[in-house]
Amino acid sequence: MGSPGDLPDVSLLTISILGGTGPQGRGLGRRLAIAGNRVVLGSRSAERAGKAAAKLGAAGWAVTGADNATAAAAGDIVIVAVPWDGHGELLTGLRAELAGKIVVDCVNPLGFDRGGAFVLPVPEGSAAQQAAALLPESTVVAAFHHVSAVLLEDETVNEIDTDVLVLGDDRQATDTVTALAGRIAGIRGIYAGKLRNAASVEGLTANLISVNRRYKSHAGLRVTDVQ
Amino acid sequence: MGSPGDLPDVSLLTISILGGTGPQGRGLGRRLAIAGNRVVLGSRSAERAGKAAAKLGAAGWAVTGADNATAAAAGDIVIVAVPWDGHGELLTGLRAELAGKIVVDCVNPLGFDRGGAFVLPVPEGSAAQQAAALLPESTVVAAFHHVSAVLLEDETVNEIDTDVLVLGDDRQATDTVTALAGRIAGIRGIYAGKLRNAASVEGLTANLISVNRRYKSHAGLRVTDVQ
Repeated sequence: MGSPGDLPDVSLLTISILGGTGPQGRGLGRRLAIAGNRVVLGSRSAERAGKAAAKLGAAGWAVTGADNATAAAAGDIVIVAVPWDGHGELLTGLRAELAGKIVVDCVNPLGFDRGGAFVLPVPEGSAAQQAAALLPESTVVAAFHHVSAVLLEDETVNEIDTDVLVLGDDRQATDTVTALAGRIAGIRGIYAGKLRNAASVEGLTANLISVNRRYKSHAGLRVTDVQ
Repeated sequence: MGSPGDLPDVSLLTISILGGTGPQGRGLGRRLAIAGNRVVLGSRSAERAGKAAAKLGAAGWAVTGADNATAAAAGDIVIVAVPWDGHGELLTGLRAELAGKIVVDCVNPLGFDRGGAFVLPVPEGSAAQQAAALLPESTVVAAFHHVSAVLLEDETVNEIDTDVLVLGDDRQATDTVTALAGRIAGIRGIYAGKLRNAASVEGLTANLISVNRRYKSHAGLRVTDVQ
C-alpha cells in the first residue's frame, strides 16, 4: 500500500489542461508532454491555445490546443489551472464535458496586497471542494498547488525538486493522479488526505510565496520519512 | 537577508514550555535541553512538571518543572504546546506573565473522526491569531507545528529531518524563533509568512497525519530551493 509499484500506468492517458495558456497550465503541459503524455491545452480562445500548443509541439511533443470545452471533452484527465477568479463559472459551464472524468484542481484561492499573499474565504471550504460541489458527476482530486510555474517553464531545469500533495476521496483517482505527478522528472506524488483537507494545502501556497520573497527562491516541498 | 548568519544568538535564553508534560512539549524540551538551552517544563500540576523535568534532568540537562504560570514567568521565550481544547483559557489566565515576551504557538486546532483529522474553525482565523488576540502585550510567533513528537522523544533519533515553518509579524521575533528551531539537530527554521497565514500551516498537520496513516511514516517537511 502506498508504494509506487501499486500505482496505475497513466502513460497512455490524454491530459487536458483548462487555463492551459497561463504559466502554470503551460508549464504542467510542457512537463507532461516531455514525459510522453498527449496534452491538450485549453483556453477561452482556441486560437491562443493553438499558438501555445504549436510552440510546445514544435519541440516534437504531442501537444494540441483547443477551447476549454473541447479540451475538457478530449481529456482522460482534466487539470484545472485557471485563476481563482472565474474558477466556479468555468466549471459550472463544463459540467457535461467533465462528467465521468478525473478533474485535478490546482487552483489556489489567494488575494494579494502590500503584505503579500493571503487566503481568500471559500464558501465550500476550498477551491477543490467548490469544484466537487459544481461537478457531481466528476471525481475531483486536488494536486499540483505548489509547483513553481517558473521552474516548470525553465528549459534549463531538468528536474523539479518538489513533492506534489494529492488529495481526494476516491482511492483509484488519487492513485492515478499520484502516478501522473510522478511522471514529471523530479516530482513525487504523495497522498495527503481527503478533499475536506484541501484548504490547508491550497493556502500553503501563500506561505511559499512568503518564503520566496524572503529567500529569493522558487520553493517547493519535500515530505520526509516517506520512502 | 535570510541567511543563518544574520540570526541572533539564542543559546543563553531560557525556554519555557506550557503543556511541557505532553508528548510535543516534553519532546521539544528534551531537544532544546540537549542543544544547551535552559528549559522549564510547565504543567497544570507543578508536581507532574517536576517529575517530567527530573526525568530529563537526570541526563544532565538543565531542565526544571513548574506550574504553567511560574513557567511562563520564568521563560525568555515561552512555547505553547497545550491541546487546542483549553488553549484560549490558558492564555487568557497568563496574560500578565507572558507580557513583553515572545510566545511561540505550536498548537494545531484539529478534530478527529473515523475519516482522520480535520481542521476546526477558529473565530480568530488560527490558534496563533487567537493567541495574539488574547495576548496583546506579547509577541506571538507560530512554529513547530509539524515536528513529530514521536521522533522528538525517540532516543535513537539524533537528527530530526524537517524544516520548521516560522510565522509572525515581528521580524526580530521570527528571527529569534528561526534561530531557536535551528538549535535542534537536523531542524532548520524557515520564515513562512505573517501570522494571518498561520491557519494553513496549522491545518497542514491534518494532511501530515493522513500521510503518516497511508505511508506508515512520521512525516516532516523540507522546503526546497532555500539555501
